[in-house]
Amino acid sequence: MLHPELISMENEVFRVYLGWTAVLVLKIFAMGILTGLTRFVTATFANPEDLMSPKLKVKFDDPNVERVRRAHRNDLENIVPFFIIGLLYTLTNPSVFLAVNLFRAVGIARIVHTIVYAVVVVPQPSRALAFFVALGATVYMALQVILAAAF
Amino acid sequence: MLHPELISMENEVFRVYLGWTAVLVLKIFAMGILTGLTRFVTATFANPEDLMSPKLKVKFDDPNVERVRRAHRNDLENIVPFFIIGLLYTLTNPSVFLAVNLFRAVGIARIVHTIVYAVVVVPQPSRALAFFVALGATVYMALQVILAAAF
Amino acid sequence: MLHPELISMENEVFRVYLGWTAVLVLKIFAMGILTGLTRFVTATFANPEDLMSPKLKVKFDDPNVERVRRAHRNDLENIVPFFIIGLLYTLTNPSVFLAVNLFRAVGIARIVHTIVYAVVVVPQPSRALAFFVALGATVYMALQVILAAAF
Repeated sequence: MLHPELISMENEVFRVYLGWTAVLVLKIFAMGILTGLTRFVTATFANPEDLMSPKLKVKFDDPNVERVRRAHRNDLENIVPFFIIGLLYTLTNPSVFLAVNLFRAVGIARIVHTIVYAVVVVPQPSRALAFFVALGATVYMALQVILAAAF
Repeated sequence: MLHPELISMENEVFRVYLGWTAVLVLKIFAMGILTGLTRFVTATFANPEDLMSPKLKVKFDDPNVERVRRAHRNDLENIVPFFIIGLLYTLTNPSVFLAVNLFRAVGIARIVHTIVYAVVVVPQPSRALAFFVALGATVYMALQVILAAAF
Repeated sequence: MLHPELISMENEVFRVYLGWTAVLVLKIFAMGILTGLTRFVTATFANPEDLMSPKLKVKFDDPNVERVRRAHRNDLENIVPFFIIGLLYTLTNPSVFLAVNLFRAVGIARIVHTIVYAVVVVPQPSRALAFFVALGATVYMALQVILAAAF
């Protein structure tokens, strides 16, 4: 049973979904800024019109830039599905305790993922662990949504 | 005319949207898992910290890994816009029969797209057909949303 | 305070969000079509099954194709977060004047971004300006959502 009243600040699940979603949107945007900064520091520009000096040439294979871009892409692959499934899961009227902790798990795990991948490289399995915590929580939400829809 | 009551399990269009969206979220995640498996099978790792043996070197150009990554990226480009436009289309109170079949078309076409692209490579135009069925259905929904907004 | 009544065509903020979101979905899809056209014009195909003649080989580094793909990826990185945060921002009951103009800013800036990046290459800072106008408007919405959630 779904109720539009669930879309309300009186619903703590919705409120926490709202907060983590906005934080993760800012986190994704931070990857774009970090890519730009790394491009400037390493003078790695993909477009001729971006070259600030006639001595520079376009360049595609800087390992630092590519690392940030892989982390950014991984965010799109994993956080963006959370945005929609977190909203739909909220609409299935889940247990407050469980839902709030699932959202926290996704939010914290994805921030940790970025730090150990693109800020300070930490040996595995740190990145794999962060990846699978967020993935597991989001898969659980998706399965609950499927059960609620039972289509 | 939009009504928040459309966000309800009594609304079959919303229920079917919910189910297919959750299935497609899991499908996108399956691409991440498939990328990982293909990386292990072909020993193609993009990060030094992922190398499991000192004999291995980072590698970027395995054709099997790149094929799965292209299919994954194609999902982000095409399924993610469906997530939001499918929800907004549901809120325009469309015909149940049409909406349910559009959602099914997107869901089935995108699963077929993945199979013929990244699981068993099937000659064209199978992939192109799957791509355009899902694209056509989503474009139709976007146009209906624009008509409803008439901004 | 959130109210589900905000999800209604009587709410102009929601109506304008709906319209720009649908337009931007079509804009993202246009990048996919433009990628395909550029692949045909330059005979740059990434998959063996896409080659239309036995004389062709797979090719990955055409600068025109890669430029369109970068613009496309930039859309996913920046427009997709707007889709969800624009919806949540609408639910925070913002000032109509401000919200409508923020949505317009994002919509117009992202269309300009595509034109100066992938249609007619215009010297910098045109692309950077378009990028930061859309980014700034979306970041503002995300901050307002965080304030509303205050979690």
